[in-house]
Parts: sequence; structure tokens; C-alpha cells
Amino acid sequence: MSTVRAWASPGKDQALVAHQYEAGPLGADEAEITVEHCGICHSDLSVIDSEWGPAPYPVVPGHEVVGRVSALGANAHGLQIGQRVGVGWLAGSCMHCLQCLGGEQQFCRQQQPTIIGHHGGFAEKVRSHWAWALPIPDAIDAAAAGPLLCGGVTVFSPLLSFGVKPTHRVGVVGIGGLGHMALKFCRAWGCEVTAFTSSDSKKDEALALGAHRALSSRDKAQLKSAAGQLDFLLVTVNADMDWGSLLSTLAPNGRMHFVGMVMNPVGVSVGRLINGQRSVSGSPTGSRNDIATMLDFAARHGIAPQIERFPMSRVNDAIAHLREGKARYRVVLDADFA
Amino acid sequence: MSTVRAWASPGKDQALVAHQYEAGPLGADEAEITVEHCGICHSDLSVIDSEWGPAPYPVVPGHEVVGRVSALGANAHGLQIGQRVGVGWLAGSCMHCLQCLGGEQQFCRQQQPTIIGHHGGFAEKVRSHWAWALPIPDAIDAAAAGPLLCGGVTVFSPLLSFGVKPTHRVGVVGIGGLGHMALKFCRAWGCEVTAFTSSDSKKDEALALGAHRALSSRDKAQLKSAAGQLDFLLVTVNADMDWGSLLSTLAPNGRMHFVGMVMNPVGVSVGRLINGQRSVSGSPTGSRNDIATMLDFAARHGIAPQIERFPMSRVNDAIAHLREGKARYRVVLDADFA
Repeated sequence: MSTVRAWASPGKDQALVAHQYEAGPLGADEAEITVEHCGICHSDLSVIDSEWGPAPYPVVPGHEVVGRVSALGANAHGLQIGQRVGVGWLAGSCMHCLQCLGGEQQFCRQQQPTIIGHHGGFAEKVRSHWAWALPIPDAIDAAAAGPLLCGGVTVFSPLLSFGVKPTHRVGVVGIGGLGHMALKFCRAWGCEVTAFTSSDSKKDEALALGAHRALSSRDKAQLKSAAGQLDFLLVTVNADMDWGSLLSTLAPNGRMHFVGMVMNPVGVSVGRLINGQRSVSGSPTGSRNDIATMLDFAARHGIAPQIERFPMSRVNDAIAHLREGKARYRVVLDADFA
Repeated sequence: MSTVRAWASPGKDQALVAHQYEAGPLGADEAEITVEHCGICHSDLSVIDSEWGPAPYPVVPGHEVVGRVSALGANAHGLQIGQRVGVGWLAGSCMHCLQCLGGEQQFCRQQQPTIIGHHGGFAEKVRSHWAWALPIPDAIDAAAAGPLLCGGVTVFSPLLSFGVKPTHRVGVVGIGGLGHMALKFCRAWGCEVTAFTSSDSKKDEALALGAHRALSSRDKAQLKSAAGQLDFLLVTVNADMDWGSLLSTLAPNGRMHFVGMVMNPVGVSVGRLINGQRSVSGSPTGSRNDIATMLDFAARHGIAPQIERFPMSRVNDAIAHLREGKARYRVVLDADFA
């Protein structure tokens, strides 16, 4: 038994408060990680806000965790005490279902999200199945590594899964926490990259982040200027957009792919799909090995999120900053339980 | 110059009438085919009815044409006078754009549909670019070959384009002109095949056509019994369905694919796409070589549509039969201009 200090949401629409919980004995397959940094992802807000259904309060958010292994269960593999690791959206999966055995643990029906029915990383310590505590390459700055583990792999995994090629023209809709990493990954992937943003002020930033051009996602004429061009269009926003015009930016065989959880149904014209053999799809986080592959790629290409840091004790200020749309582009908390 | 006798729609909501037109000189790249048989496809009705926009009347429908080559332009390749050939949805494409040069002529922007701005196969003769007059293998019955050229390749092409494997579980929604051929192709492809039909009377027929099981497409409990199972779901209907329940029949990485031109937007839940990395897509007819590959596969596996035959002079009776939903499963006209 060990008492863990944390920051928790006590209920919907309430500020986070200092919270302690008893962690119980470490499972045989588990790793315990002493938290150093933890990113704040929009999904943390969605759970805190019960946006995806009633959350099991108190919720300890935080699923872009970086720290050092401080304890290992008897069956843990491949990790050493003191090693720097990261934990993302998933802290566990069953490891014996068809999906887990096939290397697609992100589809496991027994998957354990890090912050739903499990204590997340806004805390002194966090636990995960050993396989979901991934070693962080030395070349990646520890403070910046957190956002790669959820946001990063969420935009990277589709490049792997859907056969995006360096010769492709790709678009990224929404230049925020996810989108700004997507621009970097797609540029390093070798693609021609178009950024779509609703904020003119972000256009120059998008170019600096790796886009070859930046277009307004709200301006029909600018959307039309890209008609029929894109092989892959990654949607990182969760707001309603002009989906018809965005779909029309796709080339034959093109795909519009959602990683942002748009809550309203997207009205898709079947004619637009049939004409040009287009696809619309979505994906959650990546597999365990997608994360490892992404970290390796990020290290090789020097890709890191652009972050703003807050001490974890100022978590409510940090959340307010994010909610106000001010984050450029990802907020990271530095653990300061002392 | 030669006068061609045909059956034509003089305008929206009018019966077809006997019609003659001057064909003009044969183009250097064209083949002229003396029509023997021509299937009636739902797309013929859509054009006759101006359902996809105002049709350029008079319309000579018919784009599932089988006949013999009766004349060849100076630049025509690979065809012989007297050879049995077929023409499907497309009678021409530019052959020099990116898509044509890449073997995906069905995406050519200069494509020439057989029945829009061109005289179709409800006629003595029809013309096409030589590449779009495909030799019919001897093993395929000439009268039954027509429906393969449009409906057949439309359901076959996605199996090629989207990597459907013999180990996959596939579903076919709608057991009509397209769907009944899809059942045969998917069964021969080696897949486990589920038929979805709104008509209980078609369930036994679906099993006879190749389905391993037949479920109601209108019964939520039956749809639920297939939840999470299908790798590929081919939608051949053009009516509104319970798209949410159908999408839920997909396994992780599954795809719901439209070949029926559903006119109302399909409301897609992004959550359902993200959860399980699912896709929704569509495709038109296949490429020139998809048709050739399909004909070869059909010949090898003894696949032919189930047809009902009418003399072409009874074209209006045949159309009425199709409109009344009585066709089992494809109507073919036998040319009888005498």
C-alpha cells in the first residue's frame, strides 16, 4: 500500500483539487512510474467535463506522462528501475485477445485508459502495464516527450496505418495541440503539406511548423483552391466544419481522416465518395508499437511539440489557459509535489 | 454517315420511343459494335428520370452492351471485326491524363459515359473508344455478360481496390441487380459472406446465391447480432438505411463501402469511425483493366448474373418490370430491330 498525492477533478464543472489515494499493491505486470512531467490533452478536459458520458469522479487526469520507473511487478519485461519512460492514452490492454495478439492493442475491448477508471498522471506516481510504459529515447527532451505519447501518436499512427507515402499531398485541419505535431510529422515524412486553420494568425506559424502552404478552413474560395488535390486530409479539430468543401479537396483515392472527436454527426455525400473513390475514416490512439516507432522517428528527425510549462500545482491555471485557446501549442505540467 | 435505329427517352417521365440518329463518321480510335444484348441498370433509370440533374434528351440508354465488332477506326487496337465485345458505363476516356496513364481511367475528368452525351446500347449499334470495348471470354454466355460490364465490375472493383482478402468477413447490403452479383463474387473470392436484405423473401435466394447467412437490414436485433464482425460491408442500395447500425457491424479496421448512389447525406458518427479505425467510402465503375480482370474471374468461377430477358422492342415493359421491383435480378434486352 502506498499513498499517492495527486490533482483530481471532484466532479463536473469543478476546479481540480489536491487529492490523495491509496494505490494498493503493485500488480505483477505493472510498472510504477514517478512522474516528472505530464501534458494536458483535450481528452483530459473531455473526461473532466463528462463530455463523453458521466466520468467516474474523482478523476485524476493526465495521460501524457513522462517519468522514471520506480517499481516493477514480478512479470514486468524490458524495463529497468530508474529508466525514463512515458505512458499515453492507454495504461493497459488484455494482451491475450485477437487484437492484442495481432499488435493492435488500441482495439482491445479490455483496454484500460489511463484516466478512466484508473489514476492518471497529474500525480506523484502513475502505474501502467509494463508494455505501455515506453522507453523515451535520450534524444527527446523529457519535458517535451509527454505530448508525443498521446497527441503525437494519434496523428502519427494514421500515416502508418493508411499507407501515406512521401510522394503524397497531405492536409492538416486545425493547428493546435495535435495539428502542430501533425505538420512536423508530415513534413518529415516527405509529403507536400497544406495547413488548414480558422485563425489567420496561425498561418505564419503553420508555415514555420512545416506546412508548405496555409489556407483558411472557413473560406470557401481558399478551400476551392485546393479542390481535388489531397491524398490524405487529417482532421484534428473537434468542431463542426464545412465537411463537404473539405471532402472536395481530396484527389481520387483520397482519404479524409478524423482524429478529433467531432461530436455532431458528419453529413457525408455518397456522391462525393463514389466520385473519385474517396474514403472517410477515423482512428483512436496508436498501437503499443506505433508509439515506439513514432518515438524513434521523432528522435531521428528532431520532432518535438512546442510546449508551455506550468508547475503542476498551478494545474487550474494551465487548464484555463488551454480552455481559452491560448496554448501554443501544448501545455505540460512539471510535477512539484516536493 | 449511317443511320442508327434506337430506343430513346424523349424527355423526363416519358416512355421510350423508337428513334433514329445519324452516327456520323467513325472516329479513328473508335469501335462500332452491332448490339446483340443490353442490360438495364438502375443508372439508366436515373438518367432517364433526370435524377442526377437534367439529362440531355433524347437519351438512348443502355450501358451493359454486348455485341460484335462491326467496324474499327484506323487507330483501334486489339480488336477484330466480328469479335464479341462488351461496353459498360464508360465508352471513352482521354487516355492521356494522369489517371488514364495510371490505369485508373474511371477517374478521368474527360470520361465519356456511354449514355450521357453519347448514344447508348438500346440500339442497333453503339460506339466506344476501342479500349472500352472489352473482349468477352467464350466461357461467358453472351446474353448474361452485359450486366457484368457495369453492375458486375462496380461490385468487383472494390474487392481489388481495397485489398479484400479471402480470409475476410464481408457483408452485402441489398440483394438486387448489383447485390446478387456481389454475393457470387464474394463467395468465389473465398470470404465469409453475410447478406443484408429488407425483404424476408430474398433470404433463401441470398443463401442460394452464395451467402453463408442472410440477415434483415431493417431489424435492429439482427443487425446487432453481426456487431463488430465485418471487415468489408458493400452497400448496393440507394435508399436510406440505418447507417449507424450497419457501421456497427464493422470489425476493427472495417470499411463500409458505397456503390449505390444514396441521394441523401449519410450521417456518420465520428466516434464510430475513431473507435475501431473504421472507414466509409465509395467507388464508381472500375478501371478498364478491372473490367478485364473481372471478366476473367467470372469466366473461371462460372459467375453470371441471374437474368430475365425481354425483346428490345418491349423495352418499356422491361423498364416497368424493373421499376416495380420485380426483376430477379437483372433485366436484359435482346436486340430485335430485324
